[in-house]
Amino acid sequence: MSKKEKMVQEITSMQEDFAQWYTDVVKKAELIDYSSVRGCMIFRPYGYAIWENIQKELDQRFKATGHENVYMPMFIPENLLQKEKDHVEGFAPEVAWVTHGGEERLTERLCVRPTSETLFCEHYSNVIQSYRDLPKLYNQWCSVVRWEKTTRPFLRTLEFLWQEGHTAHATQEEAQEETIRMLNVYAEFCENVLAIPVVKGLKTEKEKFAGAMATYTIESLMHDGKALQSGTSHNFGDGFARAFDIQYTDKNNELQYVHQTSWGVTTRLIGAVIMVHGDDSGLVLPPALAPTQLVIIPIAQHKEGVLEKANELKEQLSQYARVKVDDTDKMPGWKFSEHEMKGVPLRLEVGPKDIEKQQVVLVRRDTREKFFIPMDELDTKIPALIQEMQRDLLNKAREHRDQHTYIARTLEEFEQIVEEKPGFIKAMWCGDVACEDLIKENTGATARCIPFEQENLADTCVCCGKPSKEMVYWGRAY
Amino acid sequence: MSKKEKMVQEITSMQEDFAQWYTDVVKKAELIDYSSVRGCMIFRPYGYAIWENIQKELDQRFKATGHENVYMPMFIPENLLQKEKDHVEGFAPEVAWVTHGGEERLTERLCVRPTSETLFCEHYSNVIQSYRDLPKLYNQWCSVVRWEKTTRPFLRTLEFLWQEGHTAHATQEEAQEETIRMLNVYAEFCENVLAIPVVKGLKTEKEKFAGAMATYTIESLMHDGKALQSGTSHNFGDGFARAFDIQYTDKNNELQYVHQTSWGVTTRLIGAVIMVHGDDSGLVLPPALAPTQLVIIPIAQHKEGVLEKANELKEQLSQYARVKVDDTDKMPGWKFSEHEMKGVPLRLEVGPKDIEKQQVVLVRRDTREKFFIPMDELDTKIPALIQEMQRDLLNKAREHRDQHTYIARTLEEFEQIVEEKPGFIKAMWCGDVACEDLIKENTGATARCIPFEQENLADTCVCCGKPSKEMVYWGRAY
Repeated sequence: MSKKEKMVQEITSMQEDFAQWYTDVVKKAELIDYSSVRGCMIFRPYGYAIWENIQKELDQRFKATGHENVYMPMFIPENLLQKEKDHVEGFAPEVAWVTHGGEERLTERLCVRPTSETLFCEHYSNVIQSYRDLPKLYNQWCSVVRWEKTTRPFLRTLEFLWQEGHTAHATQEEAQEETIRMLNVYAEFCENVLAIPVVKGLKTEKEKFAGAMATYTIESLMHDGKALQSGTSHNFGDGFARAFDIQYTDKNNELQYVHQTSWGVTTRLIGAVIMVHGDDSGLVLPPALAPTQLVIIPIAQHKEGVLEKANELKEQLSQYARVKVDDTDKMPGWKFSEHEMKGVPLRLEVGPKDIEKQQVVLVRRDTREKFFIPMDELDTKIPALIQEMQRDLLNKAREHRDQHTYIARTLEEFEQIVEEKPGFIKAMWCGDVACEDLIKENTGATARCIPFEQENLADTCVCCGKPSKEMVYWGRAY
Repeated sequence: MSKKEKMVQEITSMQEDFAQWYTDVVKKAELIDYSSVRGCMIFRPYGYAIWENIQKELDQRFKATGHENVYMPMFIPENLLQKEKDHVEGFAPEVAWVTHGGEERLTERLCVRPTSETLFCEHYSNVIQSYRDLPKLYNQWCSVVRWEKTTRPFLRTLEFLWQEGHTAHATQEEAQEETIRMLNVYAEFCENVLAIPVVKGLKTEKEKFAGAMATYTIESLMHDGKALQSGTSHNFGDGFARAFDIQYTDKNNELQYVHQTSWGVTTRLIGAVIMVHGDDSGLVLPPALAPTQLVIIPIAQHKEGVLEKANELKEQLSQYARVKVDDTDKMPGWKFSEHEMKGVPLRLEVGPKDIEKQQVVLVRRDTREKFFIPMDELDTKIPALIQEMQRDLLNKAREHRDQHTYIARTLEEFEQIVEEKPGFIKAMWCGDVACEDLIKENTGATARCIPFEQENLADTCVCCGKPSKEMVYWGRAY
């Protein structure tokens, strides 16, 4: 048995056990390690480099839309968390409490932030006085803590990394525009960088954020047919402003409450990338996200001129891609498996024979296609292949999503689809939470969103048969 | 009284009350806001943008020296913190303890990381097996918490932002090389980016890091003559490796302990910049650090062509500098004061008369020199002025430091200098902690470092008169 076969066999196949396959990939691709704190994970260099690329791409988009980064404290005093009623009800049951500082017992407990609305509101009430101070378009990159019962790497952890945008506006219209603008930024980022197609829509009242007037979401579909909430954007109206007394003097010298939004995405996006693009050899990274886009494997690297040529190619191709040479003393087959496991988009092999023929071997990670490319064509072929692979991954994911999106017109149909064909289910809904609850109870599926792109599938609710108000995407979700 | 005068008067002068001047600057330059948690501060956009520039510059340097970023959990279980004896003694008295998660009382307390040696060690013991796995050159950007009694913005806060490098090496020699390499990276960064000269040296046993074999430091001198420890780099030897059982198999197939280092700088560097370069009009930022290097103030901006010209100049000059146009509806004098307070290195004024004469007015923040510059010379003058100002600030700070560095040969001389002439004191030392303690008790000055650049000022200890071992930099410190 070759080393390559051995390595590939080390991970469970997706068909056999998707959950175990996922766990195997996050470990073997060296994305994470477990720590001794339950539910907290360690981002290893490769996992963190992926997050850094997500940060870089999003941060550019935030700044291009006028946002500024800030940093708020990680602690929230208990009384501050309690100021907005719905918000505290939603979060208090799942926060970590600091009760002692050094040897001393605190007079008031501090929670480790599960999200920072209350801190931003307190600050906004200090710094917003006049219409000239608006809008405030702030974002912060940080980690937050939610005391979850069950956890899975990237998807649900006690501590996770994220960004949280918090904005304050003079009018409700501006707040609504901002809410939708940032949802669109997320959607564009997911499609163009992560190569993940998303459904944009509104959360139901039952599923909305604690304290929000309206929550918008982008929903994506994983390879196993489960849905993943991939980012949310909330319009708070003036609810927090009234609770925290955030008022400004308008141009007519009258006091007005501000209107606020918040929006966030987390490291669970890395989980989405794994579960949308990965295969039985491991991770498959879209080139736009990959820390290394092209890995060069020298063949018979001890032979004269091979390593020199590999490094020369690296120099040459670094203008088009993030390139690495793997010149470790492992066997080439072993290296192939390692970089496949890590999802490196392109592999370039170059050995004595290739040098003689003035060509290289190029292999695409996603399709495994193998190309023999003359060296003097690399300057055009490499950037073209990178673009092509990025586009193909998105198309493939969109096809998979569309093929796994079903329509249900009766509850029986709905139940049957959930059992037999995991995926999104489009079905009409009357708007009554009783039907939403019943569907969840019977099938485990939740309302993912009320999509912006509505279709009239029927005139009656899939559950109760009463007149339907809107079409909803349903699904079992992570 | 003009608005400008009023604004300048709003801050206390440095001579009158340096501490109050400092507090005024951090508030009025909009670097920070206070939060409702004692000792935790809010980084406002301008303060955070400065930190982002520090991060970008340092991160480049870390990556260029082969380091990779990772992220460790923010919580450390109590038993993990206790594994290295000296380390826990140093940190346990000043950590925040999480005792409850949601409604449930934890079976083991978790501390919010005050530093992450223990987490890195636990991870290293998992991922290091063979000499092939070495060196591990990791860094993380995060926030840490130390339950300090008294706090001051940037200089000492309960929570602060920092980076912590943690490395593991096959040999003690390599660990020592790394320790010094990173100290040199810090020193180069402080001089070339922050324009702050530093003294490099070794900490005394009394002042070294809890758990370290040796701590190296860079020390800088503030405008008021107080010293600031600006960055540290520790060689741990194999102490942590023995406590955490981090062993690797060497080339001879024998088990060896790794040798480790750690090194860090924090947001207190922003405090250093304020206290080294600031003046009675506020902050003065070295161009290499400044979020905005050149602010364009349109004069009589309602007149035809003025705003257009301002924006045109912005386009043109953005290839040399980070440029902003201030086109708010405030009076020019008010804008001048605001950008002076914020320490923007260069101000460019352009109005109808300037346009007629095809010139602009340029003002340097540090010297307040005013230049009339023909528009067609801007392409050479702007980059030249930026370089010049960066260099001048470093020279000025070095002069100030040198002028405030004194020599003491007796304890009486020492005490007199401390009382009358705040600054660094160079004095010989026998190496005995009793003398170090006595000096601290009598004068409040601590041993800042045993500098690499030694001088033989005398043959006897400044305190006890016994034979001296080395020259030490002493000073009262933040």
